[in-house]
Amino acid sequence: MPPSLKPLLVQINPVVGDLDGNAAKIRQALAAFSSFDLAILPELALTGYPPRDLLAQQGFVEASIALCHQLATEFEEVGPVLIGAPAQRMGRLTNSAWLLEGGLARPVHDKVLLPVYDVFDERRHFERGERATVVEIAGRRVAITICEDLWAGEDLEEAQDYGLRPVHQLADQCDLLVNLSASPYSRGKPKRRREVLKAVARRLGRPIAMVNQVGANDELIFDGGSVYVRPDGEFYGLPSFEEAVGYGAPVDPLPDPLRSDRRALMLGLSDYLEKSSLHNVVLGVSGGIDSALVAEIAVAALGPERVLGIAMPSRFSSDRSVLDARDLCDRLGMGLETLSIHGVHDALSTTLSRIVDASGLTDENIQARIRGALVMGVSNSSGAMALATGNKSELAVGYCTLYGDMCGGLAPIGDLYKTAVYDLCQRISPGDEGVIPASIQEAAPSAELRPEQKDEDSLPPYEDLDRILFQLVEARRSPQWIIEQGEDRDLVLRIAHLLKVTEFKRWQAAPVLRVSRMAFGTGRRIPLVWRHWERS
Amino acid sequence: MPPSLKPLLVQINPVVGDLDGNAAKIRQALAAFSSFDLAILPELALTGYPPRDLLAQQGFVEASIALCHQLATEFEEVGPVLIGAPAQRMGRLTNSAWLLEGGLARPVHDKVLLPVYDVFDERRHFERGERATVVEIAGRRVAITICEDLWAGEDLEEAQDYGLRPVHQLADQCDLLVNLSASPYSRGKPKRRREVLKAVARRLGRPIAMVNQVGANDELIFDGGSVYVRPDGEFYGLPSFEEAVGYGAPVDPLPDPLRSDRRALMLGLSDYLEKSSLHNVVLGVSGGIDSALVAEIAVAALGPERVLGIAMPSRFSSDRSVLDARDLCDRLGMGLETLSIHGVHDALSTTLSRIVDASGLTDENIQARIRGALVMGVSNSSGAMALATGNKSELAVGYCTLYGDMCGGLAPIGDLYKTAVYDLCQRISPGDEGVIPASIQEAAPSAELRPEQKDEDSLPPYEDLDRILFQLVEARRSPQWIIEQGEDRDLVLRIAHLLKVTEFKRWQAAPVLRVSRMAFGTGRRIPLVWRHWERS
Repeated sequence: MPPSLKPLLVQINPVVGDLDGNAAKIRQALAAFSSFDLAILPELALTGYPPRDLLAQQGFVEASIALCHQLATEFEEVGPVLIGAPAQRMGRLTNSAWLLEGGLARPVHDKVLLPVYDVFDERRHFERGERATVVEIAGRRVAITICEDLWAGEDLEEAQDYGLRPVHQLADQCDLLVNLSASPYSRGKPKRRREVLKAVARRLGRPIAMVNQVGANDELIFDGGSVYVRPDGEFYGLPSFEEAVGYGAPVDPLPDPLRSDRRALMLGLSDYLEKSSLHNVVLGVSGGIDSALVAEIAVAALGPERVLGIAMPSRFSSDRSVLDARDLCDRLGMGLETLSIHGVHDALSTTLSRIVDASGLTDENIQARIRGALVMGVSNSSGAMALATGNKSELAVGYCTLYGDMCGGLAPIGDLYKTAVYDLCQRISPGDEGVIPASIQEAAPSAELRPEQKDEDSLPPYEDLDRILFQLVEARRSPQWIIEQGEDRDLVLRIAHLLKVTEFKRWQAAPVLRVSRMAFGTGRRIPLVWRHWERS
Repeated sequence: MPPSLKPLLVQINPVVGDLDGNAAKIRQALAAFSSFDLAILPELALTGYPPRDLLAQQGFVEASIALCHQLATEFEEVGPVLIGAPAQRMGRLTNSAWLLEGGLARPVHDKVLLPVYDVFDERRHFERGERATVVEIAGRRVAITICEDLWAGEDLEEAQDYGLRPVHQLADQCDLLVNLSASPYSRGKPKRRREVLKAVARRLGRPIAMVNQVGANDELIFDGGSVYVRPDGEFYGLPSFEEAVGYGAPVDPLPDPLRSDRRALMLGLSDYLEKSSLHNVVLGVSGGIDSALVAEIAVAALGPERVLGIAMPSRFSSDRSVLDARDLCDRLGMGLETLSIHGVHDALSTTLSRIVDASGLTDENIQARIRGALVMGVSNSSGAMALATGNKSELAVGYCTLYGDMCGGLAPIGDLYKTAVYDLCQRISPGDEGVIPASIQEAAPSAELRPEQKDEDSLPPYEDLDRILFQLVEARRSPQWIIEQGEDRDLVLRIAHLLKVTEFKRWQAAPVLRVSRMAFGTGRRIPLVWRHWERS
């Protein structure tokens, strides 16, 4: 391909629904260029992805279409633009690529492969296109695909079999393959995305320009990482996890996946706040490792002045945890307030004891709910959003109190198993030199809700728990199959049982930022009330 | 059609996932019959509907298929059975009707029209069939359809245009049309279902046997109402809202829709408990109309001995509300405990005031969260499930406290607007003769969280609020359109804004039993964080 068609990668961070705001972002991104051969934007860049049921709200699609036409006139003199936006013809709504060229806008490709697995609901809204489309732009044949269109048929664990492979007939029919994407981050996904792009570019013998959305919308984090891939497999890319526009530079090797998780969570948190017009966050800091990691991520994402910790010791809190909470916040440079829950605990127990036995688990939950009410009180009074600090292991087995430690507007590490929480802390803060004190990392996990309590009194060792949970949640294996692989029968059945009977807690959990390929949230749709078909 | 093929309607209440339990129900339902011409069960009767992502769990579909074959051998001598269950051929999963006949089981029809609107996600799991199927059973031609297959193309507000109308080519090709359904209840749906059945039976000139699932699964309530419809439009049906098996009797006129709502909510509540192996419920009884209606429904569904009310007066509670709470529970025959929140309120305010201003809205939320913690404490200690008592109007505009009055395992009236709450109370308990004291029905709505507080200080009159919410939520109208119909501009924009910015509360709300065609829950998928494309 001659240098005359040099694709300009426009990696923006749209706000869902905000058509005018997203158009303004596009104008701003392109303002630095007096002309270009072809500017490429992400999938559904104008509406933001995923627009979900906004697509069914009166006037939304019409407004988006009108804006495509308006943008076409604005860019008439600068160059052709490919942008993802919905199209509607005879009542058929499609997830389309619009070509803005010569002052006119027209949908030139309708997404063929509409994912309905995982977090995706595209067939809920869209009708599918028939095939990959080749259009002529500036005298070159440009094949256009949208996200999943490129992935199908590749040798990937996640690949769905649609019986259709839109890119497989394209060799010799195009000079350039374009892919408009809104491909959410999950651990290892950036690597697999590169592998797919390289394989397809080589097979077709054609370059690929892939532009991915960046930014977070609700649970989903989009990492960007837009690239121009030569047929020889050389990559020229934009940075990940930030807005960028350009022709790409030679790409760096991908970072360690756990560090990418952290980067993704930072973006997930900061975007949630910014897009909600919120500024600060508040969280309970217990001296345990979960709240330490959430605090670290929040400070890295927002700066220490926007993060407030609340230590809420009870009669069961150890000196260690109180001192470590202080040490942590000092190291992070964030504020910490301390509120003893003694008085409220006494008052609530006394009141409740008038009619029921308020000891045991009830008393543990009371303490957690007082802490929840205090954090939410600070949130209500200050406007700071509360962060839930629970991890995926706890959420999976319900080792957490609904309306207690589960309180919060967002659960930043709700998709990290406890073992991953340890690994990540160790990586970002090895020994006692970093921001997370070694004594926090070394302390035996404890909810500190009764004397001498340790997590391992109630739960299996986290290594065992997380390994089995991964098989049940991510791999959707049956308990029977896992037992057949050699796991302890009672342990597997106990964990499967806990996972099942605590679904009601996760229904009411704060949104979990997704970094795995199966998080608790909209991508996992398990009934609340059901019985297992395997009798044990 | 000769009397030799007389369809036996088998309206069961399956538990999702419980293959063996559901098979046992089927055996029990058919045990009274030494033989039958054709027994018909609901859509996905073996798995329960909706099975959601259990379909993707290892071993589930295989176990269901094996059970179809086993049941075929069991019913070999009794008669042919049509039962809804998944089928799998060459990796294609289908929502199918299985014919068990002569000791063998085979899928004879794959659902053609797979809904993906509202609460439905069928394309997430299933591939669609090609057409309605006609099979010969006992020498008669039986056309088989599954739920939506029958509805498409009918003149209905809810009807989707699939470009396919599986039943429209069937006249002259069949002697009987069968429809296996799992059609959830919503207000007016039983009436529309009858209209559709009558219209199709008349057009085809053939009788229809429609068997619908009964019972509640999570948010969804299935009303049953299975019928045999003659071509002349005569109905022979089974009762609604309960399990039943038989050939049908002449049907009664449908009851008033609001009374059907109440019946549906009773079933939704009792089934949720029974299928969760829970027995009792506990709820805060404030002396207001919402908790009064929830108590009434709970007592009607479960009996008074299984329902406990907790009155939790604060310094702002009126004498009226405390006395009325007692009067209500006496009339209902249910228990009531009273716990003053004074002491806890003082303790929590004192603690929180050390670091923030805990007055105003913060103080109101504190009171609601103390009540939530007390109700949950009783729940934890007694094993009773807490009920959230909020209505749809409150949920829609966020006039409710997350982790406070929103606490609970289920929200029985979360899909009833406040005006419907009044109407229903008035209907079931007119004047002061019934179970809900007139003074509760006549009192001005108040959260009683500050002196002399009234809902109308913060909210528009409920008549206006509910009328506009209906346009925004159920009808998905744009604010602009609603204003153009003559509604007050500021009022519409204010309500639309409140609806939008409180999405985060509903994300964490208890499951809402659905009785409208657009409830807050899985049928409404609005982003948490978004900006409106209409600038106001």
